[in-house]
Amino acid sequence: MRVEIWSDIACPWCYVGKARFEKALAAFPHRDDVEVVHRSFELDPGRAKGDAGPVIPMLAKKYGMSEAQAQAAEDNVGAQAAAEGLEYRNRGRDHGNTFDMHRLLHFAKEQGRQDQLVQIFYRANFAEERSVFTEGDERLVELAVEAGLDADAARKVLADPDAYAADVRADEREAAQLGASGVPFFVLDRKYGVSGAQPAEVFAQALAQAWGERSPLTLIDQGQGDADACGPDGCAVPQH
Amino acid sequence: MRVEIWSDIACPWCYVGKARFEKALAAFPHRDDVEVVHRSFELDPGRAKGDAGPVIPMLAKKYGMSEAQAQAAEDNVGAQAAAEGLEYRNRGRDHGNTFDMHRLLHFAKEQGRQDQLVQIFYRANFAEERSVFTEGDERLVELAVEAGLDADAARKVLADPDAYAADVRADEREAAQLGASGVPFFVLDRKYGVSGAQPAEVFAQALAQAWGERSPLTLIDQGQGDADACGPDGCAVPQH
Repeated sequence: MRVEIWSDIACPWCYVGKARFEKALAAFPHRDDVEVVHRSFELDPGRAKGDAGPVIPMLAKKYGMSEAQAQAAEDNVGAQAAAEGLEYRNRGRDHGNTFDMHRLLHFAKEQGRQDQLVQIFYRANFAEERSVFTEGDERLVELAVEAGLDADAARKVLADPDAYAADVRADEREAAQLGASGVPFFVLDRKYGVSGAQPAEVFAQALAQAWGERSPLTLIDQGQGDADACGPDGCAVPQH
Repeated sequence: MRVEIWSDIACPWCYVGKARFEKALAAFPHRDDVEVVHRSFELDPGRAKGDAGPVIPMLAKKYGMSEAQAQAAEDNVGAQAAAEGLEYRNRGRDHGNTFDMHRLLHFAKEQGRQDQLVQIFYRANFAEERSVFTEGDERLVELAVEAGLDADAARKVLADPDAYAADVRADEREAAQLGASGVPFFVLDRKYGVSGAQPAEVFAQALAQAWGERSPLTLIDQGQGDADACGPDGCAVPQH
């Protein structure tokens, strides 16, 4: 079974929602048969690389609230993160463009290190004082290395803005096609969706339901029967 | 809609089946909304890199037939390829390990050049006199460049046996899970399967059927309603 998680590193509910999903997954009897894939979704794709700003004034402006109210909202997210056992630095967090992080996450997928890197990016963005947006490529390279990736390879990905860009864009197009307008957005076997940082119980139910309804493929052959194919024992010898 | 095609470059029916599928796709009204993805399947994964041999004696030995009979079978495949407008060199073809080609195809996917490279590999293997198995990495680099990939990047992928290896293995595990024991194997939206180089009409029917039954995701929220999420307009302010 495959679970695809659309999310953004800049999205606090994605950080919290992933922990809730993982709690449900850890208790799921068939967890070893569940493949989890990260999918890209940018909350702020129009922002320029390196352009970052503090979160509180941005929230205040966006919602027409005072900075004190915005801080209270951020404190509340922090409390919910803490309830999931996650570190959350609810003072001084900044926000910015995450495109390069998504490109690196696709590179990490190729290397079998995607889940490690997602978690490291979240922790760096939400729990550490240093910015992931303003310290240039080397900050991301450092985090990539922590996830087990090669520094030079990560550097090369970052230096080439086209590297893995098509993957990020494809994920974003798919999110729109699947009806996801916000994240986190969880898709189970392309059949069930879970939108938002739902409680772990909802993820548990979704996993059980999707697992119970796994269906084998329906083969279409229009009465032609076995067609010409090759397998480990060789290729069909044409009868035509 | 997504069509995944499990195949091997060493599989003549994959070469023929892809052409038949593409004929159906070209006539499909929603063809621009169909994403085609190549998936890896190795017919002969145990064979060492660089170890290759002529096809005819291999076929004769495998099926306990004379070399003349094996040649007749190969001629027949060639005739079917020709019927699809494909070049096919039915004398002197060799066979070998395709793992490196599959790794390169995953790299090409990241660069948006996968379909080009599949086609170039097929043509090189089935229509050209030069071997894709015995001339070393530079032969594959040359073909990768023809598909629009960077020579040094392709060289680097080939030099590192771990690069994209996990992707190839993951595809092969998925093929087994989906019940594919031979290739080509076409999977439409993980719902319908078409096994083998079926006639174009079968692919046309499969496309129409899968398209007609596209279903939106069923959202699971256990009565919790909208959960905390972030979108382009910002993040939900916690109400809890």
